[in-house]
Amino acid sequence: MTDITQDQERDKDKPNDREMFDEELLIRALEEENMDLFRSEFIELHSYDQATFFARVEEGLRARLYHYLSPEEMAELFESLDIEEEDYQDILAEMNPSYAAEMLSHMYTDDAVDVLNELDKEQVVSYLTIMDDESAKEIKELLHYEEYTAGSIMTTEFVAISKNQTVRSAMYILKNEAPNAETIYYIYVIDDDKKLVGVISLRDLIISHDDVMISEIMSERVMSVGVSEDQEAVARQMKDYDFLALPVVDFQQHLLGIITVDDIMDVMEEEASDDYSKLAGISDLDSIDQNPFSAAKKRLPWLIALLFLGMFTASLISRFEDTLAVVPVLAIFIPVISGMSGNTGTQALAVAVRGIATGDIEKESRWSLIMREAGTGLITGTTCGVGISIIVYVWKGEFFLGLVIGVSLLISLFVATLAGILVPLVMHKLKVDPAVASGPFITTINDIISILIYFGLATIFMSYLL
Amino acid sequence: MTDITQDQERDKDKPNDREMFDEELLIRALEEENMDLFRSEFIELHSYDQATFFARVEEGLRARLYHYLSPEEMAELFESLDIEEEDYQDILAEMNPSYAAEMLSHMYTDDAVDVLNELDKEQVVSYLTIMDDESAKEIKELLHYEEYTAGSIMTTEFVAISKNQTVRSAMYILKNEAPNAETIYYIYVIDDDKKLVGVISLRDLIISHDDVMISEIMSERVMSVGVSEDQEAVARQMKDYDFLALPVVDFQQHLLGIITVDDIMDVMEEEASDDYSKLAGISDLDSIDQNPFSAAKKRLPWLIALLFLGMFTASLISRFEDTLAVVPVLAIFIPVISGMSGNTGTQALAVAVRGIATGDIEKESRWSLIMREAGTGLITGTTCGVGISIIVYVWKGEFFLGLVIGVSLLISLFVATLAGILVPLVMHKLKVDPAVASGPFITTINDIISILIYFGLATIFMSYLL
Repeated sequence: MTDITQDQERDKDKPNDREMFDEELLIRALEEENMDLFRSEFIELHSYDQATFFARVEEGLRARLYHYLSPEEMAELFESLDIEEEDYQDILAEMNPSYAAEMLSHMYTDDAVDVLNELDKEQVVSYLTIMDDESAKEIKELLHYEEYTAGSIMTTEFVAISKNQTVRSAMYILKNEAPNAETIYYIYVIDDDKKLVGVISLRDLIISHDDVMISEIMSERVMSVGVSEDQEAVARQMKDYDFLALPVVDFQQHLLGIITVDDIMDVMEEEASDDYSKLAGISDLDSIDQNPFSAAKKRLPWLIALLFLGMFTASLISRFEDTLAVVPVLAIFIPVISGMSGNTGTQALAVAVRGIATGDIEKESRWSLIMREAGTGLITGTTCGVGISIIVYVWKGEFFLGLVIGVSLLISLFVATLAGILVPLVMHKLKVDPAVASGPFITTINDIISILIYFGLATIFMSYLL
Repeated sequence: MTDITQDQERDKDKPNDREMFDEELLIRALEEENMDLFRSEFIELHSYDQATFFARVEEGLRARLYHYLSPEEMAELFESLDIEEEDYQDILAEMNPSYAAEMLSHMYTDDAVDVLNELDKEQVVSYLTIMDDESAKEIKELLHYEEYTAGSIMTTEFVAISKNQTVRSAMYILKNEAPNAETIYYIYVIDDDKKLVGVISLRDLIISHDDVMISEIMSERVMSVGVSEDQEAVARQMKDYDFLALPVVDFQQHLLGIITVDDIMDVMEEEASDDYSKLAGISDLDSIDQNPFSAAKKRLPWLIALLFLGMFTASLISRFEDTLAVVPVLAIFIPVISGMSGNTGTQALAVAVRGIATGDIEKESRWSLIMREAGTGLITGTTCGVGISIIVYVWKGEFFLGLVIGVSLLISLFVATLAGILVPLVMHKLKVDPAVASGPFITTINDIISILIYFGLATIFMSYLL
């Protein structure tokens, strides 16, 4: 027990512990142009730490790295580099073009393609022209695939063997290909037409006898994904089945590439961040280290759109100015009714968006989902409606006012819940990403609906409110 | 090009393609009590598909599975089972206690602990008593660790070797331990005190010569996590460094267990879902297949809390009833001012919560972050404030009304942005999960602030508005 407490004390400072390298020493070595000292320390680092250092160091010193590190060493660093998409162009421009091209050719194809996708078309062509033919060909093939598909995140560096060989010869191939393959922990088995017919894990390979045939120990139930399948669906499959890699095939089952778990973790983070930022009404949450102007630039489009929607709400209320002049107390309850319907709509929206994202929604019929949400809206609406009626009656002493507000809240919550589920479902049906129906939009739409209901009811029953 | 289109056609039906097994055949085999037919088909399936089948089949038929499958086979299925937490108790109750205990002892320790954590304390004790001593001991050790820490998700089935041996002897140990270890792709190197001193990947092991010493090829810069470190920090580290496993150590660097990437993917999904649901103001989005009552039960606590906050807003406006009676047109703009400040607060909140979740926020000082958000609030506030002033002036023809509304919106957006960043930062400082400061709460708090500003200003400058 005491141990655990001590350990917790230590972990408090963990973010700093994670600095696994001596930044000052490295910078000093660069400043003093001491290449040997720099390399002796730097080459030992994990590529993620190398990339962290690279992204932090100022441009002048960074230029020295291109002389101190070989294109191959820089390639490994680049694979771990996590910078703003628009910065890749500037960084590559700092390098000698042939150095950059050679670095790209040494990167895993999928990572090189990620970098090239951020550049102008002309630049891509010029790098591919300088590059050795084989790498250029591999990269060109991957550049064809649409973003967010399995093809766009797969790599072509994998180990494939024929089923008509022994464990011994497979191990021999593996030892030769290990330095280049992105993963060697799953080995894919192909037939003479390069069609995927099986898979074997390195674990099974090393515990098998050397003379056993691959066809005897391979699993024929190999799961694969189509090259144009959505990356989110691939991530789900990899997570559900606990795979470290998944093979990618074309429609004739030809093995085209593999997707590894590290890429899938990036996809998961990207998709989660994307859903989250859309719920919050903000275009891009990827990085936070910017100035107020770029931050405002990301938020203003949403705010201005919402301002206009808000003005529409105002013009609606404006139509009920006569009602308001006669019963000014109605104004007091505008925020609670519009706020509550906004909140309940966001809840229903979140359920639908998550359900679509995790695929859970496929498991039941749309109809039963809508009916369930309608039921939920009725229950929450009735509870809150009765509650607010009682509160208003006790507070203001007016029975009919309480009744109008209660009934308005009941109907508003019911309609808002339905809107929250229907909008994303319809968008999904229309093949639009339902997360675009962001929180603020659903909220503002529900504002409008609830105010129409509230003032509509109040106007109809005005004689009772006087 | 044509190929890709064809492929897309095919992929549309992917969710159904993923049914990699013949459910009808399996059910028929169960109904006919044809154990041989059932086993011949079922044993071949991936454990995730077995678990999917298991969760779907009705209780009566499921009972037969406990006779058709050995506890060891059932253990593998259980490791992939993804059901509601509260259902584990019922499922285990269906089994003979000694069968259940044996199954638990065959599961990876971390997965067994996950199941046991859902049971009553008495039940846990009774299963541990029936179980073989060694398994019970390992499980008991893990049960001690707090939820959401590295200790709670680690497993004790790993391969550790001494550095004073050759590659040949290490491979020999590996082949023996492979069937039981959760991963064999990283092998950890320990000294005589069982302290972690190095790591070597299976990839490096198989490409090294048999007579090389482990100490020569191992990496001494082995990264590890403390046993009580937060699981989210562990996930971040594993994702950043692209590891397939991370060793877990105590404060003296003793190797206690490992965390594998499949568990980390579950953590990532859990944490993302958690942040998302809190932003939406809903307690639990894990599953959507429930009835309206259980759905309403999850949403009502938030809605009722927000109803009370909303009534507080109403009582605030109520204090300005005199102002409203004199200038009823003010009521029209309540929703747009409160709505806009709610939206902008949610944006700032989302930036802060994501920044804390990804650790990006550690990279800059809190002060510069707050200053940046203040600047952002000023820019968005000025833009929207000037915009609404002009619109109101054009629409209503009243200069001072436009000015009061514009200035109110400016100040509200500025304050709301600051509130959106300060609340989660303060919570983080107080070691409270900042995601608890959910979207609806920030929205409602900002409603209150903005209405105070709006009616405050209007009351002060009322003489100009008449």
